[in-house]
Amino acid sequence: MPITHIQPGRRMSRAVAHAGVVYTAGHVDDSAPDVAGQTRAILAKLDAVLAQAGTDKTRLLSANIWLADISAFDEMNAVWDAWVAGSEPPARATVEARLAGPQYRVEIAVIAAAPPPNRPARHMP
Amino acid sequence: MPITHIQPGRRMSRAVAHAGVVYTAGHVDDSAPDVAGQTRAILAKLDAVLAQAGTDKTRLLSANIWLADISAFDEMNAVWDAWVAGSEPPARATVEARLAGPQYRVEIAVIAAAPPPNRPARHMP
Amino acid sequence: MPITHIQPGRRMSRAVAHAGVVYTAGHVDDSAPDVAGQTRAILAKLDAVLAQAGTDKTRLLSANIWLADISAFDEMNAVWDAWVAGSEPPARATVEARLAGPQYRVEIAVIAAAPPPNRPARHMP
Repeated sequence: MPITHIQPGRRMSRAVAHAGVVYTAGHVDDSAPDVAGQTRAILAKLDAVLAQAGTDKTRLLSANIWLADISAFDEMNAVWDAWVAGSEPPARATVEARLAGPQYRVEIAVIAAAPPPNRPARHMP
Repeated sequence: MPITHIQPGRRMSRAVAHAGVVYTAGHVDDSAPDVAGQTRAILAKLDAVLAQAGTDKTRLLSANIWLADISAFDEMNAVWDAWVAGSEPPARATVEARLAGPQYRVEIAVIAAAPPPNRPARHMP
Repeated sequence: MPITHIQPGRRMSRAVAHAGVVYTAGHVDDSAPDVAGQTRAILAKLDAVLAQAGTDKTRLLSANIWLADISAFDEMNAVWDAWVAGSEPPARATVEARLAGPQYRVEIAVIAAAPPPNRPARHMP
């Protein structure tokens, strides 16, 4: 069973696929200051990385969400709920944690079902 | 490889099974105020969701435990140790984190081996 | 698909292998007081447990890192980056969390690709 790295860097890969499963890194985004805006940007990044792995948000298995302040739970959920609407959502756990920089208010990592081995992931730049 | 959702909701599923593996949501329970009571209630919920996926606590692969106050480590472990007694336990990581509400003192998510594809999960309501 | 436990204890196993995937426990080490030293010791422990499962750090899929103080992010990363140098690294998420004891400054758990079923894990003591 080969291992496919999506956007591998020196420190980590954006995602890694193996045996029909895609594991993404924890994604953050500070292009917006607020939790709703950051969540939207993160979910767009996850859409892109899942597409690179040949899968999408309708095939999520599990999600981990970290909030820098758990009081933003409802604000994050409003964006999340819209994102997963229309498909059966993953198992999920959400807790509070300080993130790599104070500008980051939310971080999300997911595990998704990948395409079967005979449907290769797209080549990525 | 199909994806099976256990108790899917609008926001998340209680568990999702794929390729012989079951991923559960982070489970909480506030029917008791104390960590021991909450841990017992959470593990009973996990027993139920694992049963719905056709598996059980003897087939756990991994567990993540979050405690609202890490000083309750021993109190949680006393209940955990009794729960896993009699089988080889999963890999596990336990850290402190504020949870979705202040009433929640402990949250547990597990990954378990699912039944083989020819032994379908029970139909669930 | 059998489940293989690596160094099973009463409370948890150091790692569990199933269906070509190895899940390790969150590893800590307090033989050094500093994050760099603890990270080195933890990664050496992970090397050993992955070897017991018949795999190694070049086949990592995912990593979770918890830092007792996120301001040690760069100190941990210097050790991590050297460890993963020379292979495509896993997906990774790093957040701050209080750990099981105040002496622990960093905790790391990984998921790795295991050897194929016909290449059994080494017997472990």
